[in-house]
Amino acid sequence: MVVTQRDVARLAGVSVRTVSNVVNNFAYVAPETRAVVQRALDELDYRPNIAARSLNRGRSNLLALVLPLDVPYFTELAGHVVDQAEERGYTVLIDRTEGVAERERQIMMRRDRSALFDGFIFSPLGLTEDELRRWVGNCPAVMLGEMRVAGVDHVAIDDTAAARAATAHLISLGRTRIAAIGVPHVKPEKSGERPARRTAAHRSAGYEEALTEAGLPVLPELAVPVQRYQRHDGRLAMERLLDLPEPPDAVFCYNDLLALGAMRAVLARGLRVPQDVAVVGFDGIDEGRYATPPLTTVAPDKARIAELAVTRLLERVEGDQEPPAHLEAPWRLLVDESTTGVPGESG
Amino acid sequence: MVVTQRDVARLAGVSVRTVSNVVNNFAYVAPETRAVVQRALDELDYRPNIAARSLNRGRSNLLALVLPLDVPYFTELAGHVVDQAEERGYTVLIDRTEGVAERERQIMMRRDRSALFDGFIFSPLGLTEDELRRWVGNCPAVMLGEMRVAGVDHVAIDDTAAARAATAHLISLGRTRIAAIGVPHVKPEKSGERPARRTAAHRSAGYEEALTEAGLPVLPELAVPVQRYQRHDGRLAMERLLDLPEPPDAVFCYNDLLALGAMRAVLARGLRVPQDVAVVGFDGIDEGRYATPPLTTVAPDKARIAELAVTRLLERVEGDQEPPAHLEAPWRLLVDESTTGVPGESG
Repeated sequence: MVVTQRDVARLAGVSVRTVSNVVNNFAYVAPETRAVVQRALDELDYRPNIAARSLNRGRSNLLALVLPLDVPYFTELAGHVVDQAEERGYTVLIDRTEGVAERERQIMMRRDRSALFDGFIFSPLGLTEDELRRWVGNCPAVMLGEMRVAGVDHVAIDDTAAARAATAHLISLGRTRIAAIGVPHVKPEKSGERPARRTAAHRSAGYEEALTEAGLPVLPELAVPVQRYQRHDGRLAMERLLDLPEPPDAVFCYNDLLALGAMRAVLARGLRVPQDVAVVGFDGIDEGRYATPPLTTVAPDKARIAELAVTRLLERVEGDQEPPAHLEAPWRLLVDESTTGVPGESG
Repeated sequence: MVVTQRDVARLAGVSVRTVSNVVNNFAYVAPETRAVVQRALDELDYRPNIAARSLNRGRSNLLALVLPLDVPYFTELAGHVVDQAEERGYTVLIDRTEGVAERERQIMMRRDRSALFDGFIFSPLGLTEDELRRWVGNCPAVMLGEMRVAGVDHVAIDDTAAARAATAHLISLGRTRIAAIGVPHVKPEKSGERPARRTAAHRSAGYEEALTEAGLPVLPELAVPVQRYQRHDGRLAMERLLDLPEPPDAVFCYNDLLALGAMRAVLARGLRVPQDVAVVGFDGIDEGRYATPPLTTVAPDKARIAELAVTRLLERVEGDQEPPAHLEAPWRLLVDESTTGVPGESG
C-alpha cells in the first residue's frame, strides 16, 4: 500500500502542507514540528514519489559518472568526483563501462536515462568521435580524457608533455634502450578513432619526442601494443621484450597496471628493478606506492580534474551558455625506487 | 524544446501509436516501419520521459549497488554484479559509500531514491543493525557480508572457516608466532555493532580457533586493530609488529590491502617474505597475484556471490514471498609465494 502525505499528516496531527514542507526540506518549519513529522514519516515508511516529483520540478540532483572501474585510476578519480559533487549537494551514480565500446554505446543509447540525471561526466574509451557527437546532444555533459568532441567541455592533462617527461627521466638516468608498453595498434579501426587509441597516441608522441631530442633511435621492436591496460597485459608485453636478443634497460608503461605487470615479469625472471630494467608507470595510483620496489609514475592531479569537471558541469546544469572549453589539469612525475633505486616521495 | 512522439510520428509518416510501440520496444512492428521510426527518433533526438514512464509502469529496470569502491574486493565484486544484472536485462548504478556510516546513512535516508530503483544490493560497513532494519522496510533488497538483518536476504561466505584455514595454513608451515592485522577494536561502539566490526570478529574467531587447536597461545600483542582496511594501515600495523622485542614469523591480514601494506613494511626493512615473515591476505584481488612475492589469500567466489545476490533480488522484484534466507557462497585458499616461497596457482 502506498503511504501518502495525507496519511503522514493524519498521524502527525499536522496539515498536509506542513508534511510537504518537511519532505521538501523547506526552511520555515519549526524544529519541534519537523521532529514530529519526521517520526511519522519514519513510522509509516513514507517514500516520496520521485517520478512525480521530477515531473514537477525538472531536477533530480543526480549526476551520472560513466567510466570504467576495472582500472584503479578511474576508481580513484570517481572518489574525487563523488566528493566534489557531494559538497555541492549532488549525488553521483556510477555507470560502469569497462571501456568496452558496446557497453558505452548501450549506456548512451538508453537516452531515456538522461531524464533521470541533471548531467553526465563521461570518460569514453571505446566510442568514436562521431558516435560521441551524436550522443551528447542537448544534455549537460563534460568529457574526461583525450577525446575532443566539438561542442562539449572537456578536462584532460597534457599527455604528450607528461610522457615526454617520463621518458626524459629514464634518459637522464643513462638508459638508452627504452621500451614503451601500451602504444597504439598500427592500424586505426575503419570505424574511426577511439579515445583509448588517441590517448595512447599522445603518450607515444611524447615518448618519441624525448628519444629524438636525446639523439636516441625510436626502435619499433621496443614499442609494444596491448589488448587492454591490465596487469596481465603488461606482464605479457614485458616477457616479449625480455625475450628479445637485446632486451630493453628501461620501460615506460602507459598506465600503472601495465607497469606493475611488467615489473612482475622482470622480477619473476630473477632480474632486478631498476638495475636491470627501470620501470615508469602512468596514473599515480596508491597501489604503485606499495609495490616493491615502489613505482615511479606520472600522477595526474585527480582531485583537480574532478573539481574542474564537476564545477563546469554544474555551471552547465544552471544554464551557463559560455562556449565549450578545454580545461587542462596539472600532473607531476613522482620519482621512486623503480627507476632510481632509492626511496622516493612516497617512501 | 521537448520533442514529442507526435513530432516523431509526423516526420516518420506513421501514427503516434506506432511510434509508441517502437519506443516501448513492442514486438508487433514491422522491421521496415521500425527502421523508419528509428531514423525519425534519431533525427529529432527524441528522449522518452522516464519520469512519466515510471509513473505508468512502476518499473525502471534499474538496480542500485551500494558499496565502497576504495577497496578492490568491492570493485571486482561490482563488476560481477553489473555483468549478472546485464544478462538479465537490468542496469546497475553504483552508489559509493567508502564504508563511512554517515554516507551510508545519507544514502539510505534519501529514500526517495527507492522510487528510481527496482531493488538494492547493499554492502554496509558502517550502519548498525538497528539502522539497517529501519531502513530496509518494503524495498526489495539483498545484503552482502556478515551483517544479518532480520527480514532481509543476505549473501556471505563463512568468514570464520576461511580465517581458520588461512591460519592453519601458516601453522602447517611451522610458524608459531602468527600475528593478525585488522582485528576488531576492543570496545564495540555504544551505538551498536557495525558490519565491519562483525566481519573482523568472525575472522578473529577463526584465527583464534586455529591457534588453539594447534596448541598455540593467542597472544594479545600480536593482534593489531586498524583504522581502515587500506595499504597504509597494514604498513603501519606491520611496522609496530616488527618493533616488538619478539616479532612475529607470520601474519594473517584481514584483507589483501592490509597484507600488501604489511608486505611492503617487511620488505622495506630488508627482511624477506616468506623466510622472515610469511604473509596471508583475504579477498583474492588481482593486485595480490602481481605483487612480489605473489600473495597467498582467501579468495571468496565473487562471481557466485554476485549471481546469488542478483538472482535473489530479481526474484524479490518479481514478487517472490519466500521467507528471507542466508545464502552462502564458497571460497578458496589460494596458496602462493608469500607463504611457501614457491610459485603458486597464479604463477
